[in-house]
Amino acid sequence: MRVFGVDPGLTRCGVGVLDVDNRRKATFVHVNVIRTEATLELAHRLGILAEQLSIEIDQMKPDVIVIERVFSQLNVRTAMSTAQASAVAMLAAHQRDLPVVMYTPTEVKAAVTGSGRADKKQVTQMVARHLNLAELPKPADAADALALALCHGWRGVGQQRIVDQAIKFGIKI
Amino acid sequence: MRVFGVDPGLTRCGVGVLDVDNRRKATFVHVNVIRTEATLELAHRLGILAEQLSIEIDQMKPDVIVIERVFSQLNVRTAMSTAQASAVAMLAAHQRDLPVVMYTPTEVKAAVTGSGRADKKQVTQMVARHLNLAELPKPADAADALALALCHGWRGVGQQRIVDQAIKFGIKI
Repeated sequence: MRVFGVDPGLTRCGVGVLDVDNRRKATFVHVNVIRTEATLELAHRLGILAEQLSIEIDQMKPDVIVIERVFSQLNVRTAMSTAQASAVAMLAAHQRDLPVVMYTPTEVKAAVTGSGRADKKQVTQMVARHLNLAELPKPADAADALALALCHGWRGVGQQRIVDQAIKFGIKI
Repeated sequence: MRVFGVDPGLTRCGVGVLDVDNRRKATFVHVNVIRTEATLELAHRLGILAEQLSIEIDQMKPDVIVIERVFSQLNVRTAMSTAQASAVAMLAAHQRDLPVVMYTPTEVKAAVTGSGRADKKQVTQMVARHLNLAELPKPADAADALALALCHGWRGVGQQRIVDQAIKFGIKI
């Protein structure tokens, strides 16, 4: 299963792609940060993001798009632009008939580090360790996108194994 | 000038289209409310909205898309989904090389009723009067989309006349 993680943002949008096998072994595929200039008009920025995300999705051919769930943040302006960037990512997925799954930052941190209250540095270190990366992924948006993909890879495969076992043993689910 | 107004929303997205001539005379063209079911997944709802808005824009062939500027509202959840719906509208405009203009609700109310604190009923009544509509546009989202288009029609034409006069009298602007 190829997982395409998106840490949505207008100034920096993290993209992290990895493959997860049936035994939950994750292999790093790709990481990137899409940037748009704050001086451009909002519609233009959303257009650039849509275009770049579409190119990456079409190149990577993922099975699923995983996006960080946006919550009200302290800075309402940031929350709004994050919500708009996530809308662009959801639309790109929907237009390609790809399933969209969302996780909260707490769910992602818990899955990757074991603690929902881990800080950015801990998340980055654990992502690098899990994926056997020689260097720490930078900036934080890149690490977060990989963490999202990891979170889903593990959960998604876990769920798929439950379904497979159920089918194997003839259990109705 | 044909103006395509969008009152962004996921449950109800108002669309109001009108023509404005050089003397600021506005003529009603079209009004609609695009709805998406709250039971559908968010990506699916955004997909439906994008598709429906694209169809309407392509049919109407406007010169400009006018969208209500999203502010932090009391209900953060609503503000988020409004931000996402407006992102979809901005993207549809950008992908057609159409300019996007945004106004705050206060600017729209002031332009249409003379008061930035007018209520929904007053806005609806003034929109119907300005456009010589036999019936009041319903629901409020439809009236708001027409009010947005009116607001820009008047402002936009006014600005264009200033530019025209400046050119006529050789004034550098």
